[in-house]
Amino acid sequence: MNYRMISRVMGLILLAMAALMLLPLIAGLCFHERVVNFIITIAVTAALGGLLLLPKPQTRTLVARDGFVIVGLGWILISAIGALPFVLSGSIPHFYDAFFETASGLSTTGASVVTDIPAMPRGDLFWRLFTHWIGGMGVLVFIMAVLPMSGEHSMHIMRAEVPGPSVGKLVPRVRKTAITLYLIYIGLTLAEAFFLRLGGMSFYDAVLHACATAGTGGFSTNPASIGGFNSLYIEIVITVFMLLFGINFNLYFLLLIGRWKDVTKNEELHWFIGIVAGSVLLLAAGITKIYGSFGTALRHAFFNTATLISTTGFGTVDFTDWPEYCKWILILLMFCGGCAGSTGGGIKLSRLMILGKHEVAEIRQMVRPRSVVRVQLDGKRVEKSTVKAASTFFTLYMGLLLLFSLLVSLDGVDIATSFTASLSCLSNIGPGMTGAIGPAGNFAFFSDGTKLLLTLAMLMGRLEIYPILVLVSRRTWKR
Amino acid sequence: MNYRMISRVMGLILLAMAALMLLPLIAGLCFHERVVNFIITIAVTAALGGLLLLPKPQTRTLVARDGFVIVGLGWILISAIGALPFVLSGSIPHFYDAFFETASGLSTTGASVVTDIPAMPRGDLFWRLFTHWIGGMGVLVFIMAVLPMSGEHSMHIMRAEVPGPSVGKLVPRVRKTAITLYLIYIGLTLAEAFFLRLGGMSFYDAVLHACATAGTGGFSTNPASIGGFNSLYIEIVITVFMLLFGINFNLYFLLLIGRWKDVTKNEELHWFIGIVAGSVLLLAAGITKIYGSFGTALRHAFFNTATLISTTGFGTVDFTDWPEYCKWILILLMFCGGCAGSTGGGIKLSRLMILGKHEVAEIRQMVRPRSVVRVQLDGKRVEKSTVKAASTFFTLYMGLLLLFSLLVSLDGVDIATSFTASLSCLSNIGPGMTGAIGPAGNFAFFSDGTKLLLTLAMLMGRLEIYPILVLVSRRTWKR
Repeated sequence: MNYRMISRVMGLILLAMAALMLLPLIAGLCFHERVVNFIITIAVTAALGGLLLLPKPQTRTLVARDGFVIVGLGWILISAIGALPFVLSGSIPHFYDAFFETASGLSTTGASVVTDIPAMPRGDLFWRLFTHWIGGMGVLVFIMAVLPMSGEHSMHIMRAEVPGPSVGKLVPRVRKTAITLYLIYIGLTLAEAFFLRLGGMSFYDAVLHACATAGTGGFSTNPASIGGFNSLYIEIVITVFMLLFGINFNLYFLLLIGRWKDVTKNEELHWFIGIVAGSVLLLAAGITKIYGSFGTALRHAFFNTATLISTTGFGTVDFTDWPEYCKWILILLMFCGGCAGSTGGGIKLSRLMILGKHEVAEIRQMVRPRSVVRVQLDGKRVEKSTVKAASTFFTLYMGLLLLFSLLVSLDGVDIATSFTASLSCLSNIGPGMTGAIGPAGNFAFFSDGTKLLLTLAMLMGRLEIYPILVLVSRRTWKR
Repeated sequence: MNYRMISRVMGLILLAMAALMLLPLIAGLCFHERVVNFIITIAVTAALGGLLLLPKPQTRTLVARDGFVIVGLGWILISAIGALPFVLSGSIPHFYDAFFETASGLSTTGASVVTDIPAMPRGDLFWRLFTHWIGGMGVLVFIMAVLPMSGEHSMHIMRAEVPGPSVGKLVPRVRKTAITLYLIYIGLTLAEAFFLRLGGMSFYDAVLHACATAGTGGFSTNPASIGGFNSLYIEIVITVFMLLFGINFNLYFLLLIGRWKDVTKNEELHWFIGIVAGSVLLLAAGITKIYGSFGTALRHAFFNTATLISTTGFGTVDFTDWPEYCKWILILLMFCGGCAGSTGGGIKLSRLMILGKHEVAEIRQMVRPRSVVRVQLDGKRVEKSTVKAASTFFTLYMGLLLLFSLLVSLDGVDIATSFTASLSCLSNIGPGMTGAIGPAGNFAFFSDGTKLLLTLAMLMGRLEIYPILVLVSRRTWKR
């Protein structure tokens, strides 16, 4: 293990966090608030970051293990550091709660323990929503975009932080990929903020909701979430952008360089559109009775399909009142999640496609053992190792989901609550599928132990499990 | 596809069923009941069986595809035929209900739609419980034990009917394996019947409950299941035998030929014992408050751990009243199921062990990419194809579970009910984890569509999915 290099990257992470926290500080100042909580946190974070930069690495070589450790430790560290402003200002007085809220923000989950949002200082609220934007694309990708890192070795970091079955290299060099990703990300965020402002949102709300959408997070400045704005226009803008942020960013890059055909031929995109369209129609049919007209039903079905498949978690209406089969459709969307290479969580659509095609191939092989059946995606053969990795991930995901459900149930909540709370955190969504934790509910009532557990689930979900597991593997720390 | 040979085997299956139905007919006669329902069914079944034997197969060769089709079609056929006595006597007047009940019996699930058990004729009740015994070891294994089949080609049938990651050949020849399995099966059944009779059960009840335990089924002649006998002795006997029937039958064969060491070293057995012991203690601790004393809690924890891990489904108390985390422990046991090569259902312990070891190996490989990490079981290397098969099965199982949950929820039942009803049927257990479908509940209230769906789930669970999926694959029927 290259401890000095790990220390160096940790130092960079902390400096980046200190820099990013200047934004909520400025926001607080604009609203004439006391921002001493940010000043202290920034000072401590920067000082600690500077200290970690002191040991000079003898070599810049990073192996896969180092990448996992950096990402795993780094995310736990920034969740803890990011919690400080809330604790110091007293807006979320208990550390466990603030840690949960920050990890929920950074992991782009959006599950909240804050019960009185209007009472929060505007600076704190800015930070709460802005963590979604930071976490969506990844803080390490950010560092790689800003600083010239150690060339190809940083690929190991990128691979551990960017979600999906395989890291698509947009351009050959990691730094250029990181910059390209961030430019697309910033561009889309600004576009959304513009459209939201146009719809009558304040500048503050527009920017923050754009940030929260971009990371597919789900925190809102409004206690009633998007429903609180009472605007069909705003709902449509946010719905469209939630879907846009749930799509593979490679496709935007392909659009930018004019390769339209590759985009229109993208299989994952076809399935994504198909699943969204199918779910919207099925849900709308199921809830027409509740909302009186098919039009209103369509509006709510569209928004909530988008919010769950993109794993954002914004709310308009309480879908825990919907018919049971509608809830199951939503649960299935929660499993699925966004496309690979998007900011969305969940298992990822392309993984499920690979697994589904693999199952079909296996059954065909059973029927005709001598025939050769290959798994293909976008007309290209999928490597056996990719199928294996998808399968290994799926097994781990399901196993952890059941384990988390058991542990959460120690709090005495019923089967559906423990199951969908775990699913929601592991898939980085936010709300669960029962009243207590649904769009009208909150995670505040859980015990500290359960909050810590769900914090772990959220970080595991965001980092696709392995960086966290690698941290607790004995082999990692053996020489 | 060798249609003539398939027709021949189907004919044999029907003749076997006709022969096996003589037993409930005799039971009915002993109780001086009208047995015209059995007489008609036996006549029709035997005639149909004879007809199917008419086409002379040109070759006895069976390929894998034929094996799957025979097993898949065969099980649907015997479930339908086996339902006739109930319909004809009027004890279960609707065909869908009777089909569900028979499939539940043959698949050794034990989920019931009968609400008035004491009103059933004793012959019908005999048949209801006896189907567990037939289905436990498999009707095709029965035929192979009785008749000299086409040598090694019948391996394809055996492979499709016997549960577990791979068919363990006890002895080189299929027929000898089938006979050995049946002898162990009969021996254990008789032993249990003897001990139950000793505990004061009537001869009729003792034999039938032994049959229902042997198949890890779960139907009872008592409307309150095993709890209705109010006997600690009977509960202990049944608990022990449920566990015995949840163990790999190969181990009994090894015991018989004196290879004690191989048995004591068996890893799956260690895990089975460990999981049972751990679950019993955790559950007992959780329910002591409910039952007043730790002793009584231990009794109920032991029985219900055994009934769920062996996927039998007998009941003594209503565990849907237990604390939430106890329910989750039971749900995890429902996923797990018995050992490979037992009559128990579920995913099977050895599959889960292979998957768990595979995950650990993968994480080790990630940490040290150059090290070679192998998956081992009982000191032997597990083939990559076995790992892949376990993984493919697990994915399919989980996918189907979610799909069935969605479809069952169309009946308007809540998340926990649709989820655990699907799990219970797919794992061949019987009761689910909510009041309506728990040990004190019943599946009678579901719609016909859902009953048909759950019938499919039960058959899929018993046959480990593929034989049913192969039936609906277009490739199967293409020349």
